[in-house]
Amino acid sequence: MNGAYSLVKTLLASGVDTCFANPGTSEMHFVAALDQIPGMKCVLGLQENIVTGMADGYFRIARKPACTLLHCGPGLANGMANLHNARRARSGIVNIVGDQATYHRPFDAPLTADTEGMAHTVSQWVRTSTRSADLGRDAAEAIRAARVFPGQVSTLILPADVSWNEGGVVGEPVDAPVPPPVDANAIDKAARTLRSHGVDTLILLAGPAALSEAQVLAWRVGQATGATIMADYVTSHLARGRGRLQLERVPYGMEQATTALARFKHIILVNSRPPVGFFGYPGLPSTQYAPDTQLHVLSRPDQDPVEALQGLVQVLNAPHVSMPDPGPRPDPAVGAPSPEGLAQTVAALMPDNSIVSDESISYGRGFYSFTHAAPANDWLHLAGGAIGDGLPVATGAAIGAQKQRRVISLQADGSAMYSLQSLWTQAREQLPVTTIILNNSKYNILIGEYKSVGAVPGDTAMSMLDLGNPSLNWVSLANGMGVEAARATTLEECADLMKASFGRQAPFVIELMV
Amino acid sequence: MNGAYSLVKTLLASGVDTCFANPGTSEMHFVAALDQIPGMKCVLGLQENIVTGMADGYFRIARKPACTLLHCGPGLANGMANLHNARRARSGIVNIVGDQATYHRPFDAPLTADTEGMAHTVSQWVRTSTRSADLGRDAAEAIRAARVFPGQVSTLILPADVSWNEGGVVGEPVDAPVPPPVDANAIDKAARTLRSHGVDTLILLAGPAALSEAQVLAWRVGQATGATIMADYVTSHLARGRGRLQLERVPYGMEQATTALARFKHIILVNSRPPVGFFGYPGLPSTQYAPDTQLHVLSRPDQDPVEALQGLVQVLNAPHVSMPDPGPRPDPAVGAPSPEGLAQTVAALMPDNSIVSDESISYGRGFYSFTHAAPANDWLHLAGGAIGDGLPVATGAAIGAQKQRRVISLQADGSAMYSLQSLWTQAREQLPVTTIILNNSKYNILIGEYKSVGAVPGDTAMSMLDLGNPSLNWVSLANGMGVEAARATTLEECADLMKASFGRQAPFVIELMV
Repeated sequence: MNGAYSLVKTLLASGVDTCFANPGTSEMHFVAALDQIPGMKCVLGLQENIVTGMADGYFRIARKPACTLLHCGPGLANGMANLHNARRARSGIVNIVGDQATYHRPFDAPLTADTEGMAHTVSQWVRTSTRSADLGRDAAEAIRAARVFPGQVSTLILPADVSWNEGGVVGEPVDAPVPPPVDANAIDKAARTLRSHGVDTLILLAGPAALSEAQVLAWRVGQATGATIMADYVTSHLARGRGRLQLERVPYGMEQATTALARFKHIILVNSRPPVGFFGYPGLPSTQYAPDTQLHVLSRPDQDPVEALQGLVQVLNAPHVSMPDPGPRPDPAVGAPSPEGLAQTVAALMPDNSIVSDESISYGRGFYSFTHAAPANDWLHLAGGAIGDGLPVATGAAIGAQKQRRVISLQADGSAMYSLQSLWTQAREQLPVTTIILNNSKYNILIGEYKSVGAVPGDTAMSMLDLGNPSLNWVSLANGMGVEAARATTLEECADLMKASFGRQAPFVIELMV
Repeated sequence: MNGAYSLVKTLLASGVDTCFANPGTSEMHFVAALDQIPGMKCVLGLQENIVTGMADGYFRIARKPACTLLHCGPGLANGMANLHNARRARSGIVNIVGDQATYHRPFDAPLTADTEGMAHTVSQWVRTSTRSADLGRDAAEAIRAARVFPGQVSTLILPADVSWNEGGVVGEPVDAPVPPPVDANAIDKAARTLRSHGVDTLILLAGPAALSEAQVLAWRVGQATGATIMADYVTSHLARGRGRLQLERVPYGMEQATTALARFKHIILVNSRPPVGFFGYPGLPSTQYAPDTQLHVLSRPDQDPVEALQGLVQVLNAPHVSMPDPGPRPDPAVGAPSPEGLAQTVAALMPDNSIVSDESISYGRGFYSFTHAAPANDWLHLAGGAIGDGLPVATGAAIGAQKQRRVISLQADGSAMYSLQSLWTQAREQLPVTTIILNNSKYNILIGEYKSVGAVPGDTAMSMLDLGNPSLNWVSLANGMGVEAARATTLEECADLMKASFGRQAPFVIELMV
């Protein structure tokens, strides 16, 4: 068997059965092995940032890694921004990058690049496989690295001759590594802090601590001690809606975040990191908590927050309590589009167990308070700040849910233009994704940031911040990629289009003029 | 003056007066300086690979570097594929990447990345400026590096606080460095080879050796010695049409290239590199010339080919000769679209002094022989093999020509989807670009490569190679970005649309169903 065969069989043996792909010449033997060995679902993206973003969305919902198939260094480069986001989201991806044949690399043919150098900037694990006989073993190690809790980006570089040469050996199936145990001292210290200073303490959740099982435990701790519970702003995935906590995230803006955190003397970090600003600003600190706030690490991002919170519940002897009631489900809003009205309408209409891919940027900062009473759902965010993950994450999430759950993509227009090719894959795979493009025809977040520089934008500045000349027409763009679409100028129109799309096993784009 | 002001003034002082941009929060002080200091033309691209590809196209036509404005590591990553192409094309770009404030970087905020590590993979020169007082000097060195003959990618990383802090000092204006002189021994050796073995010798041109001045000299050498003249396959820019050589490029395919080069006992490299395959293939060599062919370097890619060829003309005492006549200009072709017919129609109709951006991939391999009798034109190619440069290079070239020349973009559909956002910038800037999308609904080059693996593609392979489900509609896509468009199914329709678009100072897309 050639190397490529051993690779595909190794992936399948460990349950990696979905491949997001944009192949090139050097991957043709890998493509042939994928074609000839049954069992791998292959999904084409028309640019590599779609491919890597889909793999991220897939992981968040399927809770296991997919693999990718990228072409040489520049193909990897095209997908690096969403690998950066996946790394920040701690999503597991077996990122496979085909490359020049080992003996051809020294000739420095045009597509030759520093593939390893690129990979190291966005991966926790990188290896170039150099012999067909080693490829199965290398692939198994890549899978193991991708499964390091909660997930990692592992990049396996695959020279063409390592694919085509004979001598492949299938790698052993890989179990997920066990996360490092939570430190009992950390649990005791957190418990002491909560007993003494519960009402002055914030329990800050991120990563898997923002999912259901951990939320239930955190709520017991909070009820027993008076502590407040919030989620980190850059949490990639929250369990939300009825039966889950009415969590708020630490706000994005430095001032709002500093205000929200000012009163806490203690912050207990549960898979979260100390809250810092997205950017530095002249005269403002880097950290968002008060200077005298004490930070306590209950569990690191690579530890199991359920184990940590169970330990805390036990030490505190925190009783069982029911999850808080979010109140009645709202009715759809009417009238001119507003962030509150859209959020209320989404909460009113979303099917049970929906997935929300939220790259609404500035428009969506207040969505949470209007969507607590929605049905139970998974709400996905951009964790790495590199815009353009919303549409591909939605696409991959729909595949991760085996097309059985409605995905609602709340998408700012400027960011949508980074990865609009996702819509084509949604049409090709007939995915149940409803995309709501928030068309405000500008990089609104940047206009806000510009004003904070203390200047009024002139013509040259606006030439870099305004998207209104010419206006983008998202109905045409979606139709051009085979996706049905319509424009809505009121919330009633938006609601009607949402209801219609929720009944169909196909993608739909609503261009909401906001 | 703050650092950002000193940066803009340094750029302008050295004639860098065009900025291709996609800014983010950390660049707002730079944007403010661009806004408040007159003289810089700022052009927005809706994704960074558009921005960097435009800078490449601009350089090829304006023959001087533009600067870019990118946002943090992931923004750089998005633009890296076209920086790779620009590096291979030896285009000069002052690539400016905003980044986290120096003191904020250790907090590892979400967008923090290994910006320098990324930059090194696609740049010949990289520096992070760390003090406002140094920024002007650093920018001047970046400009100098970008102007190293014939051009380089220099990346200047700009932390936000280096922009906003006071103490900026404008850098001295920068002259282009003089290229290293051509070795007289290399000229003598080439002359001896040509005198003894002229008819068995190939003069292989690349880089600036494929432009008019060098062509005239190469032709004199060829006529005096019987040597053949060709261009490297990956030449980024050829002077073509009436008054220029009827050059052919070394073919793309390994077998065709090997056949074309087999008879040459000597190859004289004029800014070209030894011809090697784009990829390695099982059982085939990496090099395309015969095993006993002797290679002679007349001028390296960083040397002046005009100086080298002038020296050769002198030593050989090669007489003045008129350039070869390409024969009569063809008439437009009619009937069903074919590569030959399209090339003939383009040659028949293109305005004088047009620019052709050719990313036609497999469809366009035979375009040359049907376009020698076109009017004089500049013909631009993908030099680095990373698909998706055709549309942004066309866009930047139109700006480099100050909108005074018609740009014809011959564009494969699969590659077009990598950077379709370029069309929006063409509409925003009202650029005279006529794009002909070659809609064959597949990655045709890969289907050919797959067959050479020796296999018939099955359903899974075709799911990664076929673009026909759903079909892309390029009229809708173009309209969605504010560009007028129409579909052509015959060459007559294509010719009518071309003629109409050539008369208008605006972009137009022709979707040619091939």
